[in-house]
Amino acid sequence: MNRSELINLIFKKKSFLCIGLDTDLTKIPRHMLDHEDPAFEFNKVIIDSTHDLAVAYKPNFAFYESNGTKGWNSLTRTIQYINKTYPCQLFSIADAKRGDIGNTSQQYARAMFDPASSGMDFDAVTVAPYMGEDSVKPFLGFQGKWIIVLALTSNKGADDFQFFKDHEQRLFEQVLSKSQRWGDDGNMMYVVGATKAEMLEDVRKIVPDHFLLVPGVGAQGGSLRDVARYGLTKECGLLVNSSRNIIYASSGIDFAGKAREEALKIQQEMAGYL
Amino acid sequence: MNRSELINLIFKKKSFLCIGLDTDLTKIPRHMLDHEDPAFEFNKVIIDSTHDLAVAYKPNFAFYESNGTKGWNSLTRTIQYINKTYPCQLFSIADAKRGDIGNTSQQYARAMFDPASSGMDFDAVTVAPYMGEDSVKPFLGFQGKWIIVLALTSNKGADDFQFFKDHEQRLFEQVLSKSQRWGDDGNMMYVVGATKAEMLEDVRKIVPDHFLLVPGVGAQGGSLRDVARYGLTKECGLLVNSSRNIIYASSGIDFAGKAREEALKIQQEMAGYL
Repeated sequence: MNRSELINLIFKKKSFLCIGLDTDLTKIPRHMLDHEDPAFEFNKVIIDSTHDLAVAYKPNFAFYESNGTKGWNSLTRTIQYINKTYPCQLFSIADAKRGDIGNTSQQYARAMFDPASSGMDFDAVTVAPYMGEDSVKPFLGFQGKWIIVLALTSNKGADDFQFFKDHEQRLFEQVLSKSQRWGDDGNMMYVVGATKAEMLEDVRKIVPDHFLLVPGVGAQGGSLRDVARYGLTKECGLLVNSSRNIIYASSGIDFAGKAREEALKIQQEMAGYL
Repeated sequence: MNRSELINLIFKKKSFLCIGLDTDLTKIPRHMLDHEDPAFEFNKVIIDSTHDLAVAYKPNFAFYESNGTKGWNSLTRTIQYINKTYPCQLFSIADAKRGDIGNTSQQYARAMFDPASSGMDFDAVTVAPYMGEDSVKPFLGFQGKWIIVLALTSNKGADDFQFFKDHEQRLFEQVLSKSQRWGDDGNMMYVVGATKAEMLEDVRKIVPDHFLLVPGVGAQGGSLRDVARYGLTKECGLLVNSSRNIIYASSGIDFAGKAREEALKIQQEMAGYL
């Protein structure tokens, strides 16, 4: 999905909501465990009940890998289901935080973007910048695909290195600046945590037009209003993620309806900001 | 495997060789493709023909993920084969470069270290430091397991951020210093690229005793002699990785013997340095 298609989708749905599929078998409703592939069946129900309110879904790879081959299969089935059932209606993000030397990142890119090889065909992948340009470039070799580079994350450990300062420029700003050479606002986005919403002003000075993927609204404590205030552009420029608040809104048989209610609340708030 | 067991293994085998299982179906001998699970069968032959010359094996996750669920299954079978066939004789490294917010890293840790959950039981995992302490701590919650933190990598992109300088301290040095609070030389190692062997002197000033995992010898151009000169400690303190030079020493039916010849050359050079 290209940039203008994504923007159209956002204004059509009046939503910039990304739903994080952090699907944990110990947290999904007990009755779903009767299915042969509970993680996939749970995802399917969540997607079906929220697909018109969200513009993006973001499976968090860790939650599938912890279940080994079986988990990887649930993940593959989930992205295949999204692409087959809602073609051109949903943006998909492989939340995998990958990054390695060139020949290795090339293989990770095939995992995320080459269905003939891996069975998976995401629109975007999150990448870690520590290893620099050649660790992220291979992902950009896939036409129409996106990388979402970690810039300023929402966790406590973000303070450890991301504010490291060289000549008045902090590391996360250096990541934003330097990565401008790797791609453009049509194939790169950045992760910027919502728990530091006022920092979005500093981020927007360097990347005024790029889309930002903002995690940390809800369970992690960030405010949607602040994110919209500091991060929104005239083309929206934001994908705001919510995971646990939506997908675990209820642990009972009513979980699909409750997830929809939570998503609807957020979508309505977003419609007001757009 | 704990630190003293690893050191004993190294001095017993007179080797600090780590063999990287970057198993690429387009590069392994054609006749291996007749197997139902070629990647696993290839790894099995490589391990069987080199297990007495190497102390560690390091499957590179990207090369398995690019083949989707099938690849993840080959990876799982490989680590299971190592643990079952050579118990306490080989150190195993999940080269996965993971790192995310706490609850997510916890799931990645289960993927690498909790066989009841994922089927995989590695001794160590490579982690990316960008997200700081809480992104790597969950891995250290597993008794007897190791993290190997990216410090100074062997690729060109290493220059992009790792030499960023705050108060005369470069980012990779900051990673080495700050991470001392997270664990100790019994559960943490560092990735330091061989293409910058003379930098090992600077690294050793900060981490005199920690094990260093050194990629980039061979195909990437680093010299084993230089690595040993600048990095070796009295307890060895090094695991030097070679991947392509060994596993793709021949693309014919003689690949097992040729891989052994290459591994033997390196092991003999290492014996001289120990």
